[in-house]
Amino acid sequence: MPSESQDRRMLRTALEEARAGLAEGGIPIGAALYAADGTTLLGRGHNRRVQDSDPSAHAETAAFRAAGRQRSYRGTTMATTLSPCWYCSGLVRQFGISRVVVGETRTFRGGHDWLTEHGVDVVILDDPACVALMTDFTKARPDLWNEDIGA
Amino acid sequence: MPSESQDRRMLRTALEEARAGLAEGGIPIGAALYAADGTTLLGRGHNRRVQDSDPSAHAETAAFRAAGRQRSYRGTTMATTLSPCWYCSGLVRQFGISRVVVGETRTFRGGHDWLTEHGVDVVILDDPACVALMTDFTKARPDLWNEDIGA
Repeated sequence: MPSESQDRRMLRTALEEARAGLAEGGIPIGAALYAADGTTLLGRGHNRRVQDSDPSAHAETAAFRAAGRQRSYRGTTMATTLSPCWYCSGLVRQFGISRVVVGETRTFRGGHDWLTEHGVDVVILDDPACVALMTDFTKARPDLWNEDIGA
Repeated sequence: MPSESQDRRMLRTALEEARAGLAEGGIPIGAALYAADGTTLLGRGHNRRVQDSDPSAHAETAAFRAAGRQRSYRGTTMATTLSPCWYCSGLVRQFGISRVVVGETRTFRGGHDWLTEHGVDVVILDDPACVALMTDFTKARPDLWNEDIGA
């Protein structure tokens, strides 16, 4: 099982992705999928709704896609800057991703409690940088944010 | 609300997609997203795991992606040849897609009951052609099928 310092390193990768997305004019949510050792990066990505006009490209699905075809997700960790929405929570459950490291759950609460109920190890880091990023963004662009979560 | 004959027409589009996927050497699951009138096609697609080495391209997510950015999914119908997995069920719930027309639930049971619990109108057509397609495929390629559902 990855250590807390490994969890924070994984989240840092996700946060870099979120900031890259913001710099591109996109929605600042990032994610990274790591192998069971907590060190090997399988895939990373960020929300690309604006950049690619692709509503299916959430951070977690982008990281999952970047990891390519895998025979099993046992032991893997999905680090994400924000509580995963139902779409991304469903991804985690369907493919048996074992762990989810969540940057914050203050600006949005998705399906992370549901994942815990279904046996996923969910770690909430309550990271101030993640909170600040989404607080600023949702204030600046409520229209875009609501579009992204179907609200 | 679309009529049963409209539901069957929507499913036919999804089935065409599934067959196109099979002809490409892929996993034969297809989907189509229709506007509230039950007639206007917003997007269609099929599973592209094999074709694009993209595990995120399930039939429903491909159809959703093809529809591009939409401000609201209220009243829309997602027709799919097979019971939607958790990933695709999460998509439907998150974005507020109102209806799901399911070709069959015999060869796989995903999250369609969960969607019903959460207010989605789920119609199961139990279509023999959809059943036959997946029965043949899961017998012929159990490896690929298990990979696609993370089993």
